[in-house]
Amino acid sequence: MELTRCCIHSITNKPWKLEQAVDKYAEAGIGGISVWQSSLEGIGAKNAAGHIKASGLEVVSYVRGGFFAHPGGEERKKAIDNNKRQLEEAAELGAPLIVLVCGASPAQSLEVSRQQIRDGIEALLPMAEELNIKLAIEPLHPMYAADRSAVNTLGQANDMAEAIGSGFVGVAVDVYHLWWDGDLQKEILRCGKNGHLLAYHVCDWKANTLDMLNDRGLMGEGCIDLKKIRSWVEAAGFHGFHEVEIFSDIYWQMDQDEYLKKITTAFREKC
Amino acid sequence: MELTRCCIHSITNKPWKLEQAVDKYAEAGIGGISVWQSSLEGIGAKNAAGHIKASGLEVVSYVRGGFFAHPGGEERKKAIDNNKRQLEEAAELGAPLIVLVCGASPAQSLEVSRQQIRDGIEALLPMAEELNIKLAIEPLHPMYAADRSAVNTLGQANDMAEAIGSGFVGVAVDVYHLWWDGDLQKEILRCGKNGHLLAYHVCDWKANTLDMLNDRGLMGEGCIDLKKIRSWVEAAGFHGFHEVEIFSDIYWQMDQDEYLKKITTAFREKC
Repeated sequence: MELTRCCIHSITNKPWKLEQAVDKYAEAGIGGISVWQSSLEGIGAKNAAGHIKASGLEVVSYVRGGFFAHPGGEERKKAIDNNKRQLEEAAELGAPLIVLVCGASPAQSLEVSRQQIRDGIEALLPMAEELNIKLAIEPLHPMYAADRSAVNTLGQANDMAEAIGSGFVGVAVDVYHLWWDGDLQKEILRCGKNGHLLAYHVCDWKANTLDMLNDRGLMGEGCIDLKKIRSWVEAAGFHGFHEVEIFSDIYWQMDQDEYLKKITTAFREKC
Repeated sequence: MELTRCCIHSITNKPWKLEQAVDKYAEAGIGGISVWQSSLEGIGAKNAAGHIKASGLEVVSYVRGGFFAHPGGEERKKAIDNNKRQLEEAAELGAPLIVLVCGASPAQSLEVSRQQIRDGIEALLPMAEELNIKLAIEPLHPMYAADRSAVNTLGQANDMAEAIGSGFVGVAVDVYHLWWDGDLQKEILRCGKNGHLLAYHVCDWKANTLDMLNDRGLMGEGCIDLKKIRSWVEAAGFHGFHEVEIFSDIYWQMDQDEYLKKITTAFREKC
C-alpha cells in the first residue's frame, strides 16, 4: 500500500505529543491522521486543526465517542452530553467522522445495551447532521462484550446502521476485532453496497496475545490475512484511508522514530 | 439447580488428585465428573474408572481431544493418532463422550483449519462408533481463533456437525465461549432439535478478565445470564448434566474444600 493512503491513529505513537506526531507523519509521507481525544490535551481542537492543516495531513476521524450503555438514566444522559461535546471538538478539528465505541455494562443484558446504543446514536443525529459529521459504529471483539461494546460483529453493526437508516451513520471495520468472523466478507460487501462502510482500521492479532487491551501486533506480525481483507474492502467499493491503530505496551516503550519506520515498512509491504 | 445435575471437570479443582476430587464430589452430593486427560497421570484410565464407579459418580465426558489443524501433514497424522489413543482411554474410563478443542494455526487460514478439523473428526468416526463414544465439537471464544480453535460460534459448530451428519458427532455449548453471541438462542434450539446438543458447560465471564486462559469466574460472579441460557438449553430438549469447568489461577490457589463449597452454593443458586 502507498503511504498516501495511510492514516495513523495518534494513540499509536502515544509517547509523542500530537504536534510531534503530526510533523513526523507528514515528514514520512503519510496521508492522514485520526486524532484521539486524549491527544488534544494541552493543545485543544482549534490549535490542533491549524497544526494539522499546515502539515498537509488530512484529518480522517476523531476517536472515540460512544459508551452509551449504562443501567442508570443519569449516566446515559451524561454520555449523550459527552458525545455532543465530542461532536463540537470534531467540528473544530475538521474531522468528518467520529468512531463510536458503543459501550456495554456487565449489569445489564446485551440486548438492553444495544437498545441504549441505538437510542444514544439517534439522540446525536440532529447535531451530527447540522455539523456534517458522520458517526461510525465500530463493532468490538467479543472479548470486550462485558463492558466496552455490546456490538461485537459486523453483522450486528450493519443491522443497527440499517435500522437507524441515516446517511450520517455507518460502520468502522477494524481487522483486530473482526478477522475471526466467518461472515466477514459477506458483511463487508453488505455495508459497502449501502454506503455504510466509513472507516477501515488495520493492525494484527498475535497468537500469543499478552494483554487483552494493549498488545496489538504490527501488520504482518500476527495471523490476520490483511491482503485478503483489503481485497474484500476494495470489492465493497471502499477506497479511503487504511488507518493504523495499534495499542501496544511493547511498542509504546520503543524509540518512536524507529517504530514509525517499522509502521511505514509494514504498511507498504503487508497491507 | 439440584446438585445431582451437577458435573465438575476435574481441572476445576486442579490441586486435587483425581481420587481426591472424586471422593470430595461424591461426598458433596454432586452427580457427575468430567475427567481431564492430565488428571489420569499416575492413576491411569482403568483405575480411575474403578474409583469413580465405586464413588457413585457418573463419568460425563473425557476432556479433551481435537487439535486437528496443522500446516504439516505429519502433525495432522500425529493428532489423529493422539485422538485415537484418547478414544481408547475414554472407553477404559467409561466416558460416553469426548469434548473436542478443534485446533487452529496462525500459519494458515481459518477456512483451511476448519477443513482439517472436519477431516480429522471424520477419520475418528469409525473408531468412535465401534467404541460407542460420541464426539462433541466445542466452539471456542473468538479470542482463541489464532491457535486453539477455528470453530468460534455455535453456528459454525452446528454447520460442521450437520455436514458430517453422524449420530456420533454433535456440539458442546460452553457459556464462557458463547454468551456474547446474538444468535445463541437460535443456535441452541437448532442443535437441540437435531439431537446434536451433547454437553452444556457453565462458569462465568468477569468484566475485568485478567488472563485470557485462566481467569474464568464462578457462576454468578460475572455477567453471563446463566438462567436465561439454561432456559434455552432446556427448551432445546437438553436435560443432561450442567458441567462446571473453571480454569482459574485465583481459585486454584484457594483451599479446595472451601472452593468446592463456593461451587456447590453457586450451582444451586445461580445456574
